[in-house]
Amino acid sequence: MSDRTRSPLSIPLPRPRYGARPTMKDVAARAGVGLKTVSRVVNGEPGVTAETEHRVQEAITALGFRRNDSARVLRKGRTASIGLVLEDLADPFYAPLNRAVEEVARDHGALLINGSSAEDPARERELVLALCARRVDGLVVVPAGDDHRYLEPETAAGLATVFVDRPGGLTAADTVLSDNFGGAREGVAHLIAHGHRRIGFIGDQPRIHTATERLRGYRAAMAAAGLPVDESWVSLGPTSPDRVRAETERILTGRPSPVTALFTGNNRVTATAVRVLARFPRPVALVGFDDLELADLLTPAVTVIAQDAAQLGRTAADLLFRRLEGDDSAPQRVELPTRLIVRGSGELRPAPGTAL
Amino acid sequence: MSDRTRSPLSIPLPRPRYGARPTMKDVAARAGVGLKTVSRVVNGEPGVTAETEHRVQEAITALGFRRNDSARVLRKGRTASIGLVLEDLADPFYAPLNRAVEEVARDHGALLINGSSAEDPARERELVLALCARRVDGLVVVPAGDDHRYLEPETAAGLATVFVDRPGGLTAADTVLSDNFGGAREGVAHLIAHGHRRIGFIGDQPRIHTATERLRGYRAAMAAAGLPVDESWVSLGPTSPDRVRAETERILTGRPSPVTALFTGNNRVTATAVRVLARFPRPVALVGFDDLELADLLTPAVTVIAQDAAQLGRTAADLLFRRLEGDDSAPQRVELPTRLIVRGSGELRPAPGTAL
Repeated sequence: MSDRTRSPLSIPLPRPRYGARPTMKDVAARAGVGLKTVSRVVNGEPGVTAETEHRVQEAITALGFRRNDSARVLRKGRTASIGLVLEDLADPFYAPLNRAVEEVARDHGALLINGSSAEDPARERELVLALCARRVDGLVVVPAGDDHRYLEPETAAGLATVFVDRPGGLTAADTVLSDNFGGAREGVAHLIAHGHRRIGFIGDQPRIHTATERLRGYRAAMAAAGLPVDESWVSLGPTSPDRVRAETERILTGRPSPVTALFTGNNRVTATAVRVLARFPRPVALVGFDDLELADLLTPAVTVIAQDAAQLGRTAADLLFRRLEGDDSAPQRVELPTRLIVRGSGELRPAPGTAL
Repeated sequence: MSDRTRSPLSIPLPRPRYGARPTMKDVAARAGVGLKTVSRVVNGEPGVTAETEHRVQEAITALGFRRNDSARVLRKGRTASIGLVLEDLADPFYAPLNRAVEEVARDHGALLINGSSAEDPARERELVLALCARRVDGLVVVPAGDDHRYLEPETAAGLATVFVDRPGGLTAADTVLSDNFGGAREGVAHLIAHGHRRIGFIGDQPRIHTATERLRGYRAAMAAAGLPVDESWVSLGPTSPDRVRAETERILTGRPSPVTALFTGNNRVTATAVRVLARFPRPVALVGFDDLELADLLTPAVTVIAQDAAQLGRTAADLLFRRLEGDDSAPQRVELPTRLIVRGSGELRPAPGTAL
């Protein structure tokens, strides 16, 4: 890679600052011992008397010497760090996933380097390659893109990768997903069971696997009940509040026969849709994919299909470390079940006469 | 540091995996050029013909060669990474702060290594020292402990540290806080202005700076209004739902004259207190410190003192990079204003006769 093509993430910062760090040589001079002796103490090797070790430790403490693990990385070929690339560190859905990956990494003595793809495949790739350039031992990736062939040289060189929340594209790797199709199908079937025949679906962008899987679940539930889907009831696109608000209002007021229920495709969509419904003149049933804090306290409380984000992270990280420990069996695909949580909004029946 | 005392985070993982990575030597052999020529191409140095550069680039692509930035770290003394230690990656309050620090780091070409202290000073120190051992350029720390003298050798060696959300202890460093005292005082004064004289305060553990500052704000507002504080109305401790639930119930039902309003000291406490209030037989006014998603949709909607968590993160990270770019002025303390958001729960008046 020439400087012209190198990623912004590898541009060195302007000013080296570590010239002042005490070195092993400083420790040796202060303790009045040889460099080899300091090295033995620092690396816990035998052959040093208790008295000498004590002197070396005193010098280490006095000077504030710390072993440089960057050097160990080069020597041992391992960094004891893993990378986590997710969509948005600020999205509360990913917060428990992030923490769960951290906890597994910690149990294995590894640090976590993470970042947001911001749903941009180019940024995902840039971040992943910057992590690879830092020689992380493995990666957990919530993919933004759908072509991960760029990872193949890394994989060939021993990098372990696990995709989580969504599958990677055009490459074989362990993958941990929620049952997005089955969860959405269950949620929509729940609305149908409460008398709804015209149900709207508002989801995330169509290039996101979870969005299309959940839409597929919606269509499957409608088809299984013999209900037609009017395409004006379906809206996929960015989850920005403005778009979701406009689409919710459009679908709720559709002529001649507006929907009587909504299925919202993720936590961002649900948070906006409940705001629209709170001010809407007639009750509309709602089931949302993903749970939200305080959703149980709204009026009506929000019925959801909950995913276990922490379990997604834990399972992905466990798989990653199994690979790092030498498991070279074929890539696995793990699908975690979702859970219908009945709270009220999904059990509203259509107003008499509106369901036809 | 001998092996016996070294932190679990620096234990190397069991099996080196990177032996298989293509090296510059492999690239040179494939391109039919010398090692120095490959190095020139990789580092964007002059003295290579376009034709030769093309051949080397082809070999790089074919072999999947990636420059090892770990080696560059040692050579240049900089890692282009910063560390962020916060209380809990899973807490939604820290999610926007995390993302904001990431964005500033990204603007400066740096990766973010982060982790949770889990409110444990020993874990904070272990994590910070593991980050130092990895030679991060700087640290943003939400401190769990109150003695940060352990950072002094790092600081002397050039490590920049910024404390955020809470001040560090016994060490001088840039610090970015919200106006915890002023915000709580304003929230409690708001309750007093709506006729309350007996107001409860439920907050986080007393060794956490933000908890005691907010309690100080509560006491100041009560004192300014000439209102006595019955110590049975005040509760500091862990924010686990069980404790907060029990304490909320105890304070609400206190004999002989229970409180008519509550001030909750952070988002975790508020989330549990609103659950108790939702089932409580009489209306109780509530102002919470920190905003919560969906708080505007509850009945009544929750009046809060909001902090700007993203701005906390952005300000801290900006300060950090200013230091890394050479600013050696005296450490700064920045205090960001909070904002009262009036929504309904804080404007409930005491039932007639209950406020005396």
